Amino acid sequence: MNERHVIDHLDARQPEIVDWLKAFLRIPSVSADPSFAPHMHEARRFLLERLQRIGLSGVRLLDGGGEPAVYGEWNGAPGQPTLMVYGHYDVQPADPLDQWHTPPFEPTEVGGRLYGRGTSDVKGSTAIALEVIASFLAVQGRCPVNIKVFLEGEEETGSPSLRTIVERHRALLQADAVLSADGGRASADVPTINTGARGNAQLEVRLRTAHKDLHSGRYGGGVRNALHEMARLVASLHHPDGGVAVKGFHDGAASPTERQRADTAAFPYDEAAFFSDVGGSAHGEPGYTARERITLRPALDVNGLWGGYTGGGGKTIVPCEAQAKLTTRVVAGQDPRAVIHAVLHHLQRHCPPGCTLDVVAMNDGSPASTLAPHHPLVSAAEAVLERESGLRPIHVRLGASVPVTAIFKEMLGIDTLMFGFNLPDEDVHAPNEFFRLASIRQGTRAWTLLLAELAKHPPASFHVG
Amino acid sequence: MNERHVIDHLDARQPEIVDWLKAFLRIPSVSADPSFAPHMHEARRFLLERLQRIGLSGVRLLDGGGEPAVYGEWNGAPGQPTLMVYGHYDVQPADPLDQWHTPPFEPTEVGGRLYGRGTSDVKGSTAIALEVIASFLAVQGRCPVNIKVFLEGEEETGSPSLRTIVERHRALLQADAVLSADGGRASADVPTINTGARGNAQLEVRLRTAHKDLHSGRYGGGVRNALHEMARLVASLHHPDGGVAVKGFHDGAASPTERQRADTAAFPYDEAAFFSDVGGSAHGEPGYTARERITLRPALDVNGLWGGYTGGGGKTIVPCEAQAKLTTRVVAGQDPRAVIHAVLHHLQRHCPPGCTLDVVAMNDGSPASTLAPHHPLVSAAEAVLERESGLRPIHVRLGASVPVTAIFKEMLGIDTLMFGFNLPDEDVHAPNEFFRLASIRQGTRAWTLLLAELAKHPPASFHVG
Repeated sequence: MNERHVIDHLDARQPEIVDWLKAFLRIPSVSADPSFAPHMHEARRFLLERLQRIGLSGVRLLDGGGEPAVYGEWNGAPGQPTLMVYGHYDVQPADPLDQWHTPPFEPTEVGGRLYGRGTSDVKGSTAIALEVIASFLAVQGRCPVNIKVFLEGEEETGSPSLRTIVERHRALLQADAVLSADGGRASADVPTINTGARGNAQLEVRLRTAHKDLHSGRYGGGVRNALHEMARLVASLHHPDGGVAVKGFHDGAASPTERQRADTAAFPYDEAAFFSDVGGSAHGEPGYTARERITLRPALDVNGLWGGYTGGGGKTIVPCEAQAKLTTRVVAGQDPRAVIHAVLHHLQRHCPPGCTLDVVAMNDGSPASTLAPHHPLVSAAEAVLERESGLRPIHVRLGASVPVTAIFKEMLGIDTLMFGFNLPDEDVHAPNEFFRLASIRQGTRAWTLLLAELAKHPPASFHVG
Repeated sequence: MNERHVIDHLDARQPEIVDWLKAFLRIPSVSADPSFAPHMHEARRFLLERLQRIGLSGVRLLDGGGEPAVYGEWNGAPGQPTLMVYGHYDVQPADPLDQWHTPPFEPTEVGGRLYGRGTSDVKGSTAIALEVIASFLAVQGRCPVNIKVFLEGEEETGSPSLRTIVERHRALLQADAVLSADGGRASADVPTINTGARGNAQLEVRLRTAHKDLHSGRYGGGVRNALHEMARLVASLHHPDGGVAVKGFHDGAASPTERQRADTAAFPYDEAAFFSDVGGSAHGEPGYTARERITLRPALDVNGLWGGYTGGGGKTIVPCEAQAKLTTRVVAGQDPRAVIHAVLHHLQRHCPPGCTLDVVAMNDGSPASTLAPHHPLVSAAEAVLERESGLRPIHVRLGASVPVTAIFKEMLGIDTLMFGFNLPDEDVHAPNEFFRLASIRQGTRAWTLLLAELAKHPPASFHVG
């Protein structure tokens, strides 16, 4: 088998691949907002057609009661490993719209970058994976391994029906491992292999101090103010140095191993640039480097907070209500459910008399995922990346969460290699998200080599714990 | 002179007065919303016509570049004091409309109450003042004192052009004192005299921790979060017991006098009911009763706060920006400008490294107003209210602010007696605002007696400092 022809085919098809990706990006498949439901439907039709056209069989939707996943398979390599290729077709909302320099759903090339919502997260890398399969089938009539494509529609909303989908289609989804287009590269300079990700969980609370907003002239100075109390609650979550002050928050968190700390130190990471690029400043748990804090340690962030009058001008009220959205990041060894409950208990314990704290939303979250250092997925990726770059790949962990990896591990017993080609500076979940056009060629080469490399490992070797 | 005939005339005219008030209330004179400008014009025409009909001279608009004031005078009592009668014809917006039980601009009588926007604040009390003048002129052909009616059109938007109006018409507006229809009664059970009001000032700030919102997976735990920092700033403004923790915030605040504390204690005030009516709980500066805190002591409230993602569901970001609106209430002896600057300096001093704090809006505010206990305005009001009720009136201070009183004091050197007849529970600035119909008769009697009583004081006696 010669992957050279597949790579040549992919290289020749680059303009066509970019065009297809742009068409995919023009579909505003925002899963969080119900008013975008027709576009979610449109995105599924678009993918079903593509999977059929590239020659997959069993192309269909897998429904779990929410946004269905798009599925297709190729089973022409008996005895070879079966890889589930994971991507997601939903994207984050584009708000705040006024901060985009180009229309979020009209992909725009500027200086080697493709701007648009979903370019980096994760339609770009999803396109890479699909087009590699397409070229294998077009050039060779076969893939090196068996393939099960699984494209989720709820990644950006926390995968609420993924468990149901897996439960309903457990037999169909049997595989030896998962290759994920989500979970990208850590550096443009050195090859990196994702050996895991933090998990997460979320909580939304409402604090009330009165039945209604009160006139600040008539009540100010004599009554509790919901914003003052919410501020005090939020301030109590962290120590001034940035460490989390919630009792039980760190329970179970595995201390970073020597190998992890060494890998982290080996990673070429310009801390000053990391912060100055975004205008931010280093802050967090004492005793850890910034890079360790954001990959190896748990974190707690308030993602949104509001209360009182937020319109133009002033309004002299004592607000009666304040609301906050919080998320945790958890690491290996932690139960995300226990961690988010620790946060809730902290808030309840610190809620002052005369105030009520209600849970608006809460989920059990998903745990961190971890790939053993000598797992065949890791070995294959190391071989490919070293061949492509001439450099020894560095093991890194993702600070972000890919809950599906934990769900696949728990329900199907299989591990995931995150092999996306996006880069950390591409403003995912923010205005002006972009994907480097060069990453498409790098990604299609690497995925081609990876599928071939994985065929060298016996199926049973992927099931290592 | 016998006020009996005037009161009889007013009593006989009650249905006619209510009808006129209703016509006034049907004009949606919302000053805050430019789309209501035609109705502001309509309200002025309506008032100009009324002032002319009741026999005032020099009826005209006084323009300061915003919504003009409506003016008219009666100068037929040479040697007697000249009183400026203040009211305002603008009202608050009626939003949220869906919470009204009756149409806000169709005044509706229900069980002795007149519901509608502006009933209590302050068209009801404005009508009382005008109708008393009308009856004096109708019955006696004269008033006991000289009158200058001044009806503002921008009270609900912070009186932006009032200073210009006064500046341009300084000679016209010379008077010995102001009688204000705004600033109401503190109790339905005992007669009260407003001897002053707290002043106020406002500030809006924006805190930034980065150039853009960051992915909480990629940055969470390693970077400052604007909402955490804003929460810490806001929490630092108050001690846990509710007292203000800002250095310099209390500077200049006159300690409550023995008389003030005795008056406050004498005021029949059911603290438990005050809080349970609104579902709130007592909280504030130690060493003071709730009533003292909201009338005699300065206060600092955050009126609105927001940052990050506030839509449906979750968004895993580290917010880069948080914004807050704050207002102070200041008491006698304080410079509101110094107080609001103390708040700003506190925020700046506590703003952590790597964060920027910008002032979005700030004003110099207006100081508290105070009437000396033996001021002729107070003596006259005491005489009237004691005669009417058989009870010794209690001196109270308003917790709310009436900036016009400070402006008249500063620019014209004259004091204001707030002699409105609304009551604290009438949901001003809120849905279902109402005014008690019985207050119209009580108010027209008291204003009649007050004008007669004021005539007993020589003009110079009103200028007591």
